[in-house]
Amino acid sequence: MKKSLGPNTLAQPAPVWAVGSYDEEGKPNAMIAAWGGICGSDPACLTVSVRPGRHTFAGIMKHRAFTVSVCPAPLAAEADYLGMVSGKKTDKFADTGLTPVKSDCVNAPYVDEFPLIIECELRETVDLGVHVMFVGEIRDVKCDEDKLVDGKHPDPEKILPLIFSPGTRAYHTVGQQVAKGFDAGRKYLKKD
Amino acid sequence: MKKSLGPNTLAQPAPVWAVGSYDEEGKPNAMIAAWGGICGSDPACLTVSVRPGRHTFAGIMKHRAFTVSVCPAPLAAEADYLGMVSGKKTDKFADTGLTPVKSDCVNAPYVDEFPLIIECELRETVDLGVHVMFVGEIRDVKCDEDKLVDGKHPDPEKILPLIFSPGTRAYHTVGQQVAKGFDAGRKYLKKD
Repeated sequence: MKKSLGPNTLAQPAPVWAVGSYDEEGKPNAMIAAWGGICGSDPACLTVSVRPGRHTFAGIMKHRAFTVSVCPAPLAAEADYLGMVSGKKTDKFADTGLTPVKSDCVNAPYVDEFPLIIECELRETVDLGVHVMFVGEIRDVKCDEDKLVDGKHPDPEKILPLIFSPGTRAYHTVGQQVAKGFDAGRKYLKKD
Repeated sequence: MKKSLGPNTLAQPAPVWAVGSYDEEGKPNAMIAAWGGICGSDPACLTVSVRPGRHTFAGIMKHRAFTVSVCPAPLAAEADYLGMVSGKKTDKFADTGLTPVKSDCVNAPYVDEFPLIIECELRETVDLGVHVMFVGEIRDVKCDEDKLVDGKHPDPEKILPLIFSPGTRAYHTVGQQVAKGFDAGRKYLKKD
C-alpha cells in the first residue's frame, strides 16, 4: 500500500558532491550539494543546484566554473562539515585539512583527497525558486589511478561514493554489485 | 595520482529511475533514466534527461507530465529491460509483468511494484545537445508504507534503490549507513 507524502524532495539516491569554486576574492571554497546529477552525454554535462545566498553561488557566477569532487565514505565527516558552515566565515579546507588543487582546465579548485573529480564550465543557469540550477559542461574527469577498472572506468566499490537519503538524512555508500546493466534484462527479450 | 579520463559522464552515483509516461496514443510506457537528480527544494523539482528520438520523449511533450519510479534491487532485471527496448515496438509492462498505475495527480503512469514514486508535471525543457533535460515539478511522492521510517521518511535500506555506475555499467544498491548528515561534521566545528 502506497502512502502519499506530499510534494517534496524524497527521491533516491542523491549524490554527495563537493562543489568547488573560487570565491569573489579568489579563495578556494567547497560546499556539499545533494541536488544534482548528470544531465547530458554529448556534450557531457551535469547539474548542481545552489541557493543564491550561498557563498559558492557568487563564486561560480563570477568565475563561470566549478568542480564536483565525489565524496568518499571514509571522508564522510569532512564532507558533512563542508555542508555545515559557510565559506564566508571560515576556510573549510584549512579546518578539515583537505587540500584544494587548482583545476588544469577550468577556473575552480577541487578536493585532492576525494577520488573522483568532474571539472565543469558553467553553461547555463535555470532559476527554480529557492535554488538556481547550474548546468556545467564537463571539461575533464579525473580519478585516482588505483580506483579504476581497466585503467578507465571508476570502480564504485573502490571509490565508495557517499549517497544521501533525503528524509532520513543519512549517508550510505554503495553496496555489492546487483547486476550488469544492458544484461540483466535480457531474459525478457523476445526470442523471435 | 589522478588520471585524466576526458570530458565524459563518469560521475557517481547515478540513479536508476523508471520514467513513466503515456505515449501519444495513451499507452503506458516506461524507460530507464540514469541522467537525472533532484534540482530544487521549493518548489520541489527534479530533472531527467531524454533523447528526442525516444518514445518517451513524445509522450512527455504531449501530456506535459511524467513519473519517476525508483527501481529497487530485487527488480533489477525488470528495470534493466525497461532500458533495453523501445515502447514503440513492445509493451514493456506486459513483457515484464510490471503494473502501470495512473497517477492521481498528474497525467502519467507509475510502476506499482516499485516502492518509491515521484509524480511530476513538466515545468521546462532545456536543450543540451543529444539530450533534452526535463525539469519536473513534483506534485506528490508516494512510498510503500512498510518502507518508511517514522511513517514519513523513505528508508534506503528497505527501498534498496539501484545505483548505476557509468563506466563499469554495473548496478549496485545502497550499503550500510556510514554517518548521519548534519552530524558527522560537528567534530570540525570550532568551539569558540
